[in-house]
Amino acid sequence: MKRLGILLSGRGSNFEAIADNVQRGRLTAEIAVVISNRQEARGIVAARARGLPAVVLPSQGIAREEYDRRLVAELEWHRVDLVCLAGFMRLLSADFCRAFPLRVLNIHPSLLPAFPGLNAQRQALEHGAKISGCTVHFVDEQLDAGPIILQAAVPVLDDDTEETLAARILIEEHRIYSEAIALVLSERWRIEGRRVIAK
Amino acid sequence: MKRLGILLSGRGSNFEAIADNVQRGRLTAEIAVVISNRQEARGIVAARARGLPAVVLPSQGIAREEYDRRLVAELEWHRVDLVCLAGFMRLLSADFCRAFPLRVLNIHPSLLPAFPGLNAQRQALEHGAKISGCTVHFVDEQLDAGPIILQAAVPVLDDDTEETLAARILIEEHRIYSEAIALVLSERWRIEGRRVIAK
Repeated sequence: MKRLGILLSGRGSNFEAIADNVQRGRLTAEIAVVISNRQEARGIVAARARGLPAVVLPSQGIAREEYDRRLVAELEWHRVDLVCLAGFMRLLSADFCRAFPLRVLNIHPSLLPAFPGLNAQRQALEHGAKISGCTVHFVDEQLDAGPIILQAAVPVLDDDTEETLAARILIEEHRIYSEAIALVLSERWRIEGRRVIAK
Repeated sequence: MKRLGILLSGRGSNFEAIADNVQRGRLTAEIAVVISNRQEARGIVAARARGLPAVVLPSQGIAREEYDRRLVAELEWHRVDLVCLAGFMRLLSADFCRAFPLRVLNIHPSLLPAFPGLNAQRQALEHGAKISGCTVHFVDEQLDAGPIILQAAVPVLDDDTEETLAARILIEEHRIYSEAIALVLSERWRIEGRRVIAK
């Protein structure tokens, strides 16, 4: 059974969707550890409630390289095959990315390369986009820039607020993140340039 | 009846889709003039075959400001209410845009703001996007940057070439360009910041 490490900083709704899919047998994997950089993250409480190994590694006041070394050690200790970022609000260092080459996934609430960075839903609204969505991608050292595994589109409606748009996108996030994890774990894919192509 | 001016440089497949929709009564407007900057554009031949006023205004060797003045004069002579770019391979000057404020539309084969500029389909493929599409937007002085009126999404498939992806997007282009023209002509919309919102 392949082992997932989940990194989060907040409520971890994508973590919960992944855990639900594992529990219901829709995603063949096990969650080896959930790590938060914030003590008060709701996702950590949820992980404990599910009986999953939950670790808080506070990041405040620690240099990125040192923090990422601890993170790598923790993930290796739990023999993690694939790292899934689920609202982990930190950039990862080059060393971290090198420790898990093509084994770190992230989900972003826009159709990348449009609207990278913070508040992607607000960016889409303010830009006047009529379609937005979400993207699961491999993580590299650049922000929201690694090869794309899956995307899903949603309409942006005239009366949308940031909240209603975010909620519509979140439904698709919860669906495609597990699909992307399953695809990556299947190893039935290859990379050509930036393209992730299913075999 | 509102009068459309179509500008093109090539085969003008979007022009033909608009003309078909006008002919079938699906789009309430008339095509007042089709203008090409290239003598040999297939779209001009098609316009003549349809019995539409077709004008060639060669652009080679003429300064942009002077050319755009001639273009504005030609469009005004034909009492055009709305200008539709359909593969018109020139940037328009600030003076042109000021002559037709919020009355120039363009269609672009990507989900802007992703993949502006030339070869948008190739850009999407090479970036590894899993979803692309097309965008009808108001034209301003910047390239592919004005307020977005409509967008449509299409999947990018693993075995796509630039040609197969372009063909899939073109089907949506032919559909949404006429829808966007109808919306703009209806005047049942307003602009808030960059957002085009239907009333």
